[in-house]
Amino acid sequence: MGDEPVRRAREGFRWDGVELLSYKDEGSAPFRDVTRQVLFADAAGGAEWRYFEVAAGGWSTLERHEHTHAVMVLRGRGRCLVGLRVHEVGERDLVEVPPLTWHQFRAAPDAPLGFLCLVSRVRDRPQLPDQQALASLRSNPAIAAFLDGRHR
Amino acid sequence: MGDEPVRRAREGFRWDGVELLSYKDEGSAPFRDVTRQVLFADAAGGAEWRYFEVAAGGWSTLERHEHTHAVMVLRGRGRCLVGLRVHEVGERDLVEVPPLTWHQFRAAPDAPLGFLCLVSRVRDRPQLPDQQALASLRSNPAIAAFLDGRHR
Repeated sequence: MGDEPVRRAREGFRWDGVELLSYKDEGSAPFRDVTRQVLFADAAGGAEWRYFEVAAGGWSTLERHEHTHAVMVLRGRGRCLVGLRVHEVGERDLVEVPPLTWHQFRAAPDAPLGFLCLVSRVRDRPQLPDQQALASLRSNPAIAAFLDGRHR
Repeated sequence: MGDEPVRRAREGFRWDGVELLSYKDEGSAPFRDVTRQVLFADAAGGAEWRYFEVAAGGWSTLERHEHTHAVMVLRGRGRCLVGLRVHEVGERDLVEVPPLTWHQFRAAPDAPLGFLCLVSRVRDRPQLPDQQALASLRSNPAIAAFLDGRHR
């Protein structure tokens, strides 16, 4: 975290002393146009506080894991799947992703979706849906439309 | 946190299902015009994610403790003391308060200072400065001016 107690916000949702990172290694999982910044690597006795930004039309990986996410949207708007429901989200909305719950964040076609996301530093690896899990999710028309980037 | 995975932001930096609380019990410690909202009571395996708002001209308690604060300003502007330095802060600036470091947040005279603050759910009680600690801090003219709400 460096020696300075204060790190200034810069234009474009960047911060002094905070590196702009890839969301994940290319090819490790499906996603489109997502960046990651670690704001606090070791906060509150074991939490990692990150800022993710999904560019307009982009989406995070559809995945689930034992660890939870606590999210606040900071920029723009979009939709998220949490479990079996799709939610419209905008600035300062709060999202909680419980353990082992399928989730994905999608930016609007014409706006980015930037959000703060809190996780435990010690956490399990995300699981991707297999063919059966994906078919089960897609049997819900609202989820199928969401995963295809369509608004119903 | 309730059953809903999404809690919407409302006007005025309030959220659905999030109660507006006193900062502290009146008389327990010196402060002026501060509110507290607990956004996530148990995030990331042991963190509490709060939003504090200091009204224009108000200030949080001058205190220190073993636990750390990870802070992001969300609204308005002001100044904060962290250790022996006073910093101007504004929207999206990040502040880290290390263990046992004197700190205080003061809103500008004409703007609120709202900030996200992450702490461990399990944490020690804040310590207030005794006369000697206060005199030592006040021996620094910049800190004395800050504590008196003066801009030097």
